[in-house]
Amino acid sequence: MTLGSQNLTRLDQLFYSMRDANACFLGYPFAKDFNYEPLWRFLKFTGNNLGDPFEPGTYRVNSHAFECEVVEFFAQLFRAPDDGFWGYITNGGTEGNIYGLYLGRELYPDGVAYFSRDSHYSVSKAARLLRLEHAVVDSQSHGEINYDDLARKASNERNRPALIVANIGTTMKEGRDDTSKIRAVLRDVGVRESYVHADAALCGPYAPFLNPKPSFDFEDGADSVTISGHKFLGAPMPCGVVLARKSNVRRVMRAIDYIGSLDTTLSGSRNAYSPIVLWYAIRCLGIAGIKRMFDQCEQLAAYTADELNDRGVDAWRNPHALTVVLPPVEEGVKAKWQIATQDVSHVVVTPGTTKQQLDALIEAIANSGR
Amino acid sequence: MTLGSQNLTRLDQLFYSMRDANACFLGYPFAKDFNYEPLWRFLKFTGNNLGDPFEPGTYRVNSHAFECEVVEFFAQLFRAPDDGFWGYITNGGTEGNIYGLYLGRELYPDGVAYFSRDSHYSVSKAARLLRLEHAVVDSQSHGEINYDDLARKASNERNRPALIVANIGTTMKEGRDDTSKIRAVLRDVGVRESYVHADAALCGPYAPFLNPKPSFDFEDGADSVTISGHKFLGAPMPCGVVLARKSNVRRVMRAIDYIGSLDTTLSGSRNAYSPIVLWYAIRCLGIAGIKRMFDQCEQLAAYTADELNDRGVDAWRNPHALTVVLPPVEEGVKAKWQIATQDVSHVVVTPGTTKQQLDALIEAIANSGR
Repeated sequence: MTLGSQNLTRLDQLFYSMRDANACFLGYPFAKDFNYEPLWRFLKFTGNNLGDPFEPGTYRVNSHAFECEVVEFFAQLFRAPDDGFWGYITNGGTEGNIYGLYLGRELYPDGVAYFSRDSHYSVSKAARLLRLEHAVVDSQSHGEINYDDLARKASNERNRPALIVANIGTTMKEGRDDTSKIRAVLRDVGVRESYVHADAALCGPYAPFLNPKPSFDFEDGADSVTISGHKFLGAPMPCGVVLARKSNVRRVMRAIDYIGSLDTTLSGSRNAYSPIVLWYAIRCLGIAGIKRMFDQCEQLAAYTADELNDRGVDAWRNPHALTVVLPPVEEGVKAKWQIATQDVSHVVVTPGTTKQQLDALIEAIANSGR
Repeated sequence: MTLGSQNLTRLDQLFYSMRDANACFLGYPFAKDFNYEPLWRFLKFTGNNLGDPFEPGTYRVNSHAFECEVVEFFAQLFRAPDDGFWGYITNGGTEGNIYGLYLGRELYPDGVAYFSRDSHYSVSKAARLLRLEHAVVDSQSHGEINYDDLARKASNERNRPALIVANIGTTMKEGRDDTSKIRAVLRDVGVRESYVHADAALCGPYAPFLNPKPSFDFEDGADSVTISGHKFLGAPMPCGVVLARKSNVRRVMRAIDYIGSLDTTLSGSRNAYSPIVLWYAIRCLGIAGIKRMFDQCEQLAAYTADELNDRGVDAWRNPHALTVVLPPVEEGVKAKWQIATQDVSHVVVTPGTTKQQLDALIEAIANSGR
């Protein structure tokens, strides 16, 4: 296969435009500056992790063995029950959230879903896709769910099971819902059956090491937990991990002769490359490396908030958050630094973010008249 | 980031095991032997095609421009209405089938889904996920849907809209349902409202060039069409294209401030690499290249069926199919050549499949006592 010279030029142009954009985004929680070059050779194959990663199957051009190790690594971090968990590597946060709510719905077909208005837009999309009746719960100003409003809304439907999505942290403010408190609220208002899915897209990889530890994992009352791989850890393509209780996964499982395996995953054909990327990341870093990487990011996030405050910008962050929340930035700053903006703007200090980038952004915001 | 020597060894072992498995699979419809090495450099970035590919958005490390060209290429091949279509690049066939049925359900919330028992397992999974009432329709022995049974079943629910998934071709036999006939059947039994989704995972890229052309595209009555990118075209990771009528997509569209774009896709964060791969494939091949590649594969498929017949094996294929259907192979052959097996086995002659591989398989089957 060869490409004509005009198309070769266009390919180069795309490369340079992606390279330049990659060098100056600060508003999305994607790690930069990773190096997975030793893994590129795996792209020679038509890798496909179809089927259950923990089961043998007919097609063997897969990375199931590495996928299982990644799942087990996070199962341990998230205090999943020994022998009682199951998981797989997804194409990103949306698949993980659909999967969690799907398991909840299959357990409680008559359940009502609850999630805060600060939830990622994939959560309401998942509820619609799954035809789940749902109630959007108010948030507190720092992003965490409003437990009183949850109590009110769940109380109205106290005779029906509750399916909760807890945010660990929210998309804009990195607010963290508390799964133990959520469980207590539901109990107090008389909801007898519930399923809690924790959307830990950003914070999952470092939340276990924070002090105090956010309440979000299996021992804290979650029934499923998802994280993104392309956020804190970093990956060249969206991916994630979803973990769930094995007993709930059995409800959606079917044996499929065509693949000689069990169909337990949402996607059928699945990326074999992203599990190798995540395996490589956790094996290179180890827990010590993840902690170190988080500490570096948090120091820079604290520095950014301080510097903005010194310049009269009302910036703040949640405890141990990598997300610096600030008033909406002006259009030029938003466009240049790709700053996600709703009612507020934010900067997310991910691994690979440099002090130089942050200093340039701080100056740009200060000079834009705030 | 560095890897210890033990893990370096394990990484090499995975590479060799995937390489060896990649060299001897003949039972799954994935092209082999592609060369996308000129694209590996794009994996330095945290590419993410989040948002609508046809709309500007805040995050710019994306390949939206190439994604749109791929969508437009197939829109033209599939005779989509000028200015009336929309599409995006998916993570594979399951996402495309969920998306098509989702659009159909949003158009006709009270619809009943119909699909043949030879449909890919993702179709029944999508129906379950979407909480769609559905009826499984009988198939003919060569894999195509049984139109009489469709008429019977649709007639029972003639006052409700019908959501049909047509297979272009089926997973095991490459049988092709005829969307024009399906439309006629529904009309004849008095179904007034219907939505037809064509699952053209394997055949999509070459079906437009067959003579006679299978009836499957927009002018033949389809409302949405999906293809897989990792099947006939070839890709290192599962991907696909879904095309739909723009008016139906508007029903699921929402503006999302966080991404500064429209949320029209099923996945939120989306792979930016696979659109570059598919763009590269269609630009290198062009229509002439796709036709040539198909002709080579079809000749080898015909050769395989003939050689097996000469050896007393009851092998056959549908007109212009790349899939050779045969009685179930024995366990050793199935394991070595990764031969998908249900009530029948099959060999799929994809681009990159060699005569040497097929000869070895033919001998193995002949010598296994059939």
